[in-house]
Amino acid sequence: MKLEKLVGDRFRERPSDCIIDSHALMVRGGYMKYVANGIYSSYMPLKRITRKIEQIIREEMDAIDGQEVQFPVVMPASLWQESGRYESIGKELVRFTDRNKSPLVLGMTHEEAAVQLVREYGQSYTKYPFMIYQIQTKFRDEARPRAGLIRVREFTMKDAYSFHTSQADLEEYYEKCHKAYERIYERVGLPEVISVASDSGMMGGSISHEFMLLTPVGEDSIAICPECDYRANMEAAECIIHNTRDDVSEELKLVHTPDSHTIEEVCAFLNCEEKKSCKAVVYQRNSDDHYIVLFIRGDLEVNETKLTNYLGDDIHPAVITEESGLCAGYIGPVDLKGDFTVLYDRSLEGLNNLCCGGNADEHHYTGLDMKRDVPEAEYHDFAKIQQGGICPHCGKPTITISRGIEVGNIFQLGTKYTKSMNMTYVDKDGESRYPIMGCYGIGVGRLAASICEAHHDEYGPIWPLAVAPWQIHLCAVRPDDGEVKAYADKLYEELQSKGVEVIYDDRKVSPGVKFSDADLIGVPFRVIVSPRNMKQNIVEIVSRDKSFSANVPVDAALEEILKILSQAK
Amino acid sequence: MKLEKLVGDRFRERPSDCIIDSHALMVRGGYMKYVANGIYSSYMPLKRITRKIEQIIREEMDAIDGQEVQFPVVMPASLWQESGRYESIGKELVRFTDRNKSPLVLGMTHEEAAVQLVREYGQSYTKYPFMIYQIQTKFRDEARPRAGLIRVREFTMKDAYSFHTSQADLEEYYEKCHKAYERIYERVGLPEVISVASDSGMMGGSISHEFMLLTPVGEDSIAICPECDYRANMEAAECIIHNTRDDVSEELKLVHTPDSHTIEEVCAFLNCEEKKSCKAVVYQRNSDDHYIVLFIRGDLEVNETKLTNYLGDDIHPAVITEESGLCAGYIGPVDLKGDFTVLYDRSLEGLNNLCCGGNADEHHYTGLDMKRDVPEAEYHDFAKIQQGGICPHCGKPTITISRGIEVGNIFQLGTKYTKSMNMTYVDKDGESRYPIMGCYGIGVGRLAASICEAHHDEYGPIWPLAVAPWQIHLCAVRPDDGEVKAYADKLYEELQSKGVEVIYDDRKVSPGVKFSDADLIGVPFRVIVSPRNMKQNIVEIVSRDKSFSANVPVDAALEEILKILSQAK
Repeated sequence: MKLEKLVGDRFRERPSDCIIDSHALMVRGGYMKYVANGIYSSYMPLKRITRKIEQIIREEMDAIDGQEVQFPVVMPASLWQESGRYESIGKELVRFTDRNKSPLVLGMTHEEAAVQLVREYGQSYTKYPFMIYQIQTKFRDEARPRAGLIRVREFTMKDAYSFHTSQADLEEYYEKCHKAYERIYERVGLPEVISVASDSGMMGGSISHEFMLLTPVGEDSIAICPECDYRANMEAAECIIHNTRDDVSEELKLVHTPDSHTIEEVCAFLNCEEKKSCKAVVYQRNSDDHYIVLFIRGDLEVNETKLTNYLGDDIHPAVITEESGLCAGYIGPVDLKGDFTVLYDRSLEGLNNLCCGGNADEHHYTGLDMKRDVPEAEYHDFAKIQQGGICPHCGKPTITISRGIEVGNIFQLGTKYTKSMNMTYVDKDGESRYPIMGCYGIGVGRLAASICEAHHDEYGPIWPLAVAPWQIHLCAVRPDDGEVKAYADKLYEELQSKGVEVIYDDRKVSPGVKFSDADLIGVPFRVIVSPRNMKQNIVEIVSRDKSFSANVPVDAALEEILKILSQAK
Repeated sequence: MKLEKLVGDRFRERPSDCIIDSHALMVRGGYMKYVANGIYSSYMPLKRITRKIEQIIREEMDAIDGQEVQFPVVMPASLWQESGRYESIGKELVRFTDRNKSPLVLGMTHEEAAVQLVREYGQSYTKYPFMIYQIQTKFRDEARPRAGLIRVREFTMKDAYSFHTSQADLEEYYEKCHKAYERIYERVGLPEVISVASDSGMMGGSISHEFMLLTPVGEDSIAICPECDYRANMEAAECIIHNTRDDVSEELKLVHTPDSHTIEEVCAFLNCEEKKSCKAVVYQRNSDDHYIVLFIRGDLEVNETKLTNYLGDDIHPAVITEESGLCAGYIGPVDLKGDFTVLYDRSLEGLNNLCCGGNADEHHYTGLDMKRDVPEAEYHDFAKIQQGGICPHCGKPTITISRGIEVGNIFQLGTKYTKSMNMTYVDKDGESRYPIMGCYGIGVGRLAASICEAHHDEYGPIWPLAVAPWQIHLCAVRPDDGEVKAYADKLYEELQSKGVEVIYDDRKVSPGVKFSDADLIGVPFRVIVSPRNMKQNIVEIVSRDKSFSANVPVDAALEEILKILSQAK
């Protein structure tokens, strides 16, 4: 490919709407173009990168006996009504009707389609286990697309679905797929990706893992214990609290607390620590605005994922009206009356001598004893794990919180979809049973952007060889020099005839423009043919990451380049 | 791949809803599964076939300097409003809104997206020509999906867009692409595909060609002249009529024609040939139901594509009401009064002594002389070319009508999209100009089905090697025989290690089941290991199309298979 003919513009200025480097570089380098919010077109360099990533994923899925299939992008609503997700999923699921007013949806994931495809096939236990996967376009109407290809609305994803006759068999396959994912990240140049326990969210099921590239620009928070191998998405991390109760319980006392609405203000006014307070956090159910009042220790925050999972309903932060019966800023567990769901976080269990709202304007209680004053309370884990928190695995107070980009996920789905969609098989004993499913996803575009995020400098991406748009960037500096041009043309032809993927820059532009373009295209090895080099009868070979450079005699250049490429693989 | 693990059911019964063989065989063979009207999932064998077709297309597009890119499936309506197609295309274009009520469409073709991608890039003449293409899912809300993958609503398509600075350059590239298409059909096993002149329809532009696989089950009609190289879709074929006028014109006479509504009835009643009648065919404009009355010689039919193109509006057959002012069954050109658009086909030009409607119940005229009685008539070509019609190219009355499946199309678009979307470049002289476009499509699934339609017998598809899901179908007959199993297992491993794509049937089922499954999977070469063969120390190699069979010593089998495959390529 001649760079002169490469469609797409490259430029120096960082676009003002790009928050993260990978997005900025992939726009500046002519990889992608904005079409609409969360919707992009890809130019050739990105298309080549994603095709290579897809092929690596395909090989690893085939290696664990995956069968590549294809599900539709557009599906009848009826499929999603069977599973119940037509109702349970919010606006992320695009719903529309066709010319005959039949309701359709755009696929954002394909559990339903997978079950539909194999429902008749999988009627005997002898057919199991099996795994089917596809690599395909999906659309999810995200409320807040951001960060270029990291969070988009339209994306290409590899999604795989496995079917089993026992939990043990699922677990064995799940582990196999976990290893396949590790090989995928290794091969695309991200061996540093780690897996963390995750929340299963709308997919259903119990055990699940996310694969995370740790980076400060990630949108997920991950709890990591450096003392053991515990790693979990903060959404899923259990928050362990060792409560200590004072020896003597004070009396419950209503006190006047003028102008003290927040926990900080109240604690400052009453001169107590935040951890000696009982904070109310109020939500409303999305479906009917019913109020949910959650009490939690004042120094902790609510993990809304845990709360949503507990409730089985979607929620939003409450708007507390006068009619609600709640006294905003002064809500407490004592004498709280009204049609609310009241919940208690484990952080409060057994505590005494707390302050809390008095359920009356400008009044709080002091001396709250949870055992004595709220004897009916049941305690559950609704709190966010914190930096320095207790590791749920080894028990040490060593939790650190890092940020990461999720570059893949795997779920043990159980029978959620096979049950709801009535897929059964007959087992050895003639009994009818529901198959057990696993599902396994990797977003291709997000993975490409993550590789760029992990491997770039201020001048451009540094693509790992396995996914680079080309393997060699051949620069003819001063191609108006006949000797330079003749040699570079010949090398270009020779490299191509050896199957090397070459992008060849024989434009009559300055070396500065050539090199900054080469930086943006990010090809791992650059071969420089210039008048000065030709005089010395050499070509320069340098790696994009600057770790390698060599001057090679012109006659040996071809052989040397082939050697470098074969060693780098 | 072991056949035992292949997901998908195969069966003998022809599904009752399958009109054409390829559809029936691809359902019976476990290639595809119905999801909704015109929407299918693909099982592994079909996915392998379409991926191979895609790779062949990709190689041929790359060979003519195409750059693979990717456009979105979901596009903002604004893009299609720019080109005007948001309004001009009917219900085939799926329109919906996102969570923020922004109007979106599903891509059914990507001219708009292509212009959007390169509008900034292509601002200087030095960037031209270039071609970008993608292979991607599209959705077209067809009114009548039919024939399996031949006419679906969701499909994968290669669509390419070229940009030029002169008509001559477009034509040169168009010719190059025409040749690339010929190579593609040749390589996928359909060298018999022919190109025919076509109507440009909603794509705009002037010159266009369709690539047709001639088959009685095709839904297109093609006019072919065996005397010269004229080939055109009937929609686009000019209808040439040599009108002969009688020497003497009779008098125009209103006659009573009771119970004669149709041309056949009238001609029978009046005892004249249909070609001596002037028939009225009435349509209504879709937008406002305005009536269009078209007069044509009684023995000819209306080509609605020509009529639509002439009008620039979509039409439907008229419902003639009492208020319309039209006298159904008796409409004629003389004294026809009312707010109608009245058109005349060339077949009537200069004719005399015709019968026609009298614009009054149960009355017709005889002795109609178009020159004398309808002097204001202008004549255009609205007629369908017919079997035995005059060839527009060589002028001989030798036209034959065949049916075909359209497996690709190429269009010279001109500046329709660049003008409407304001894409300009600065030419050598500093003048601002609109680039000239071409576009080039191939439907991948339809091509797969067409290959099956062209290459099958009653037992299943006969896939050409280049697109077959596997290259070798290895049958172990009686795998409970230790010698058979051991040898077949070994051959399976050896073939795989040589990079041969093998589907291996070591199921403990009858030879009949094995062979009928092999027929349905349609792999070009079958290798049979059986107790009887083992006794003779041979294996049988037979081709799916029965043109080849050989007994090969077991020790030479691997080498022989590799030889057969390399020769067949």
